[in-house]
Amino acid sequence: MIGEFDLDDRLQDLVDRIVANYESDPRTRHIDRGYLPSYTELVRIIEMLLEVSFPGYFGRQNLSSKNVRYHVGDLLPRLAQALYMQTFRSLCHLNEIEGNYDPNGPPDQATPFDRRAREMAIEFLNKIPDVRDMLAFDVQAAYDGDPASANTDEVVLAYPGLLAITIQRYAHELYKMQVPLMPRTMSEWAHKETGIDIHPGARIGRSFFIDHGTGVVIGETTDIGDNVKIYQGVTLGALSFLKDERGRMVRGYKRHPTVRNSVTIYANAIILGGDTVIGEGATIGGSTFLTSSVPAGCTVTNSPPELTVRPPKARKPGQPVADFDI
Amino acid sequence: MIGEFDLDDRLQDLVDRIVANYESDPRTRHIDRGYLPSYTELVRIIEMLLEVSFPGYFGRQNLSSKNVRYHVGDLLPRLAQALYMQTFRSLCHLNEIEGNYDPNGPPDQATPFDRRAREMAIEFLNKIPDVRDMLAFDVQAAYDGDPASANTDEVVLAYPGLLAITIQRYAHELYKMQVPLMPRTMSEWAHKETGIDIHPGARIGRSFFIDHGTGVVIGETTDIGDNVKIYQGVTLGALSFLKDERGRMVRGYKRHPTVRNSVTIYANAIILGGDTVIGEGATIGGSTFLTSSVPAGCTVTNSPPELTVRPPKARKPGQPVADFDI
Amino acid sequence: MIGEFDLDDRLQDLVDRIVANYESDPRTRHIDRGYLPSYTELVRIIEMLLEVSFPGYFGRQNLSSKNVRYHVGDLLPRLAQALYMQTFRSLCHLNEIEGNYDPNGPPDQATPFDRRAREMAIEFLNKIPDVRDMLAFDVQAAYDGDPASANTDEVVLAYPGLLAITIQRYAHELYKMQVPLMPRTMSEWAHKETGIDIHPGARIGRSFFIDHGTGVVIGETTDIGDNVKIYQGVTLGALSFLKDERGRMVRGYKRHPTVRNSVTIYANAIILGGDTVIGEGATIGGSTFLTSSVPAGCTVTNSPPELTVRPPKARKPGQPVADFDI
Repeated sequence: MIGEFDLDDRLQDLVDRIVANYESDPRTRHIDRGYLPSYTELVRIIEMLLEVSFPGYFGRQNLSSKNVRYHVGDLLPRLAQALYMQTFRSLCHLNEIEGNYDPNGPPDQATPFDRRAREMAIEFLNKIPDVRDMLAFDVQAAYDGDPASANTDEVVLAYPGLLAITIQRYAHELYKMQVPLMPRTMSEWAHKETGIDIHPGARIGRSFFIDHGTGVVIGETTDIGDNVKIYQGVTLGALSFLKDERGRMVRGYKRHPTVRNSVTIYANAIILGGDTVIGEGATIGGSTFLTSSVPAGCTVTNSPPELTVRPPKARKPGQPVADFDI
Repeated sequence: MIGEFDLDDRLQDLVDRIVANYESDPRTRHIDRGYLPSYTELVRIIEMLLEVSFPGYFGRQNLSSKNVRYHVGDLLPRLAQALYMQTFRSLCHLNEIEGNYDPNGPPDQATPFDRRAREMAIEFLNKIPDVRDMLAFDVQAAYDGDPASANTDEVVLAYPGLLAITIQRYAHELYKMQVPLMPRTMSEWAHKETGIDIHPGARIGRSFFIDHGTGVVIGETTDIGDNVKIYQGVTLGALSFLKDERGRMVRGYKRHPTVRNSVTIYANAIILGGDTVIGEGATIGGSTFLTSSVPAGCTVTNSPPELTVRPPKARKPGQPVADFDI
Repeated sequence: MIGEFDLDDRLQDLVDRIVANYESDPRTRHIDRGYLPSYTELVRIIEMLLEVSFPGYFGRQNLSSKNVRYHVGDLLPRLAQALYMQTFRSLCHLNEIEGNYDPNGPPDQATPFDRRAREMAIEFLNKIPDVRDMLAFDVQAAYDGDPASANTDEVVLAYPGLLAITIQRYAHELYKMQVPLMPRTMSEWAHKETGIDIHPGARIGRSFFIDHGTGVVIGETTDIGDNVKIYQGVTLGALSFLKDERGRMVRGYKRHPTVRNSVTIYANAIILGGDTVIGEGATIGGSTFLTSSVPAGCTVTNSPPELTVRPPKARKPGQPVADFDI
């Protein structure tokens, strides 16, 4: 009958083959293992962070000085509970991988991770006011840096660059506290929403503005000063990856650039390397490719491209043509 | 107990600190203020616009000439109500910022914004047929411009470039009517969905096609003619920002390029400046960086890069290596 | 009354104008026609494919070797039913466009498409183990290729490049079976989520890794070998489009590059043309623009840009300035 489909006898064979396939490789299954953080819960945490950071803009509206204490007093315990639980799961997960925790062992094995998760949740919540202070400067930087912006409310409500740096500043706090898995998952959520990929490890100063932003990549060991402005498609990346004597990648050393105060980097510029320093007040032109340092106060552009200007070709009717020949 | 977390005594202190932090800076709080448009409602408006623009493709399926009048007659009042309400809120918001409206004042202060919002909603709805006429040409342009497209239904259902231009054409109508906040929020929704960032202010002719599209940026004062085709990563942007004698950015003058009829712009090209005019029928090659005008009918490419071709290096075993050296 | 809006007499006129507008152009309406696949159902299929491919990571958690057979036995029939139904609708849709099926004709006209859809669903489900084998190598390639990755679980949970290649590998199976519409819609879903646009037609070898990924475009007739690594903003595209003697685009011939085993392509490189072959082990530097082949084992970079380094200009106070002059 059209519309109904039954696998019948084939179901058992399919199940057998797929389950056998699960058994063949541990890298793509999470079976007979312990905790994983929940992506759904991480998204809830992000939403609550936005609500507590920009009160009245996200989540509950119509806040007044009369009701705002009740609102925060209601929101924080829910945020704390979710933070604690996902931090706990992330700690268990890492310790299981590293062989320090057996999810099938006695329950009190998890006690130290539970205690640490509670401490981390409190430590993180206490940082909210400081992060909010940074965000106020980021809002102002976006308004000042974009002639198309109408007012700071528009920046808070609609600018992807502000969303990306908001998530990054919180993820960076978790990163510094060495919470596993969660910071990267949060920054990948922001990447999905905005096209802006800032690693939680990057250190970013005050009054940071990314305009448009799609395609921006800022690597883990990047250092960025105050009053820096970056356009779409800019990469602050690694020049090369060291490998150890067994050919395995070396992790953790400084591989991404340092960008000093008051630098502007235009669209699609690529700046690579842990020793590359862009000096204070420098301006980096669009589509440049830089692997060495730039002195303070200088403007760097590509030499003007030698444009080849060709008049339109005569095309014989009836003959196949290419509409772009190089 | 594992799994439960109570902030206990710490809650009150945290609430106090966060509420005090709210009081310290007005740019990141919306407290004791009036209306803001609702993002959720703006997304609903977008969904209804897609449903009324491409009937049978989005939202309700199985439309026939027998039931389509009922469908539209049911959809339009809901769209009108949502448009009116969000326009009203946006007008109140702007006038509050500009000091013309006090949300805590007498209710009849809002009457002129209410009346204007009703007029704007009607004016906007009346433009739907004209916008749909433009969209039909955009659908055809995408089908004609992409050898990988199978039929025009596929274009309507799956092409991000069509989604971006659809939202932009409607946001542009709101922009011309000077509805505050909503046009930019709509275009940022499309930016999030497609990676294509077209400002609502851009004027775009008939039969416009953006292929792939991720990273495309088209600025507020861009003028684009008919039959223009643009690939991923293309920027039509500002060359420089004028500042007034107090160092503040000047807003509102023409800062983005003019692109005449039948121009094709390949991937990652950057074209900047309000005086830059790309002449009719010109072709702009990939990765070019243009800040001056191009005559009609010409093809512009970078001079072929001098490629440095290096054979593989001998690598001593046991020695750390970089896998990419420049 | 503020808050309520009634179109009154204007409703009928608006409905008349919009319905008349529907009648004027067939390209933007789907009225009095047959089946379309459901986007909502395609997203459900994608979610079920992720759940069956990475058990315990997506969808149901806490899987064990005791319960996993029941889980798969419950999931597969739901996946099979959705696959069959959307494949059936897609086949009817294509055959209606091609004039082989009249949705208002006798019901048994659809019987061959119904039968073919059942075969296709079975054929596709049988490929899941092989696709999963490929995905395990992709997971490893991401871990090995990114010094910032902590473990393979993080890759599965958070890496957009893995999500994009997962969807592409399944969409490619549907593409090879010539299922209409669905493969492209699936790959556009991945494009929306990740900014990575890989056509379902592309043939991609083992251990493929896209890092960051935003802006990557890989065209329909691209061939990619094993152990290839690609960074954000890379285009593997068409150099030109052949047109036939009536000026219509020729579809279906090889228009995109061939990339052999163990090639690395850095950010924003553009490689175009069906005859362009990147030889085994080659490295392509960032921002290069290539329309010709590269021999095996070579490193290709742009000649170092002649950077123009300009010291900061003296600016007279009170005079308008541009903050970026080229």
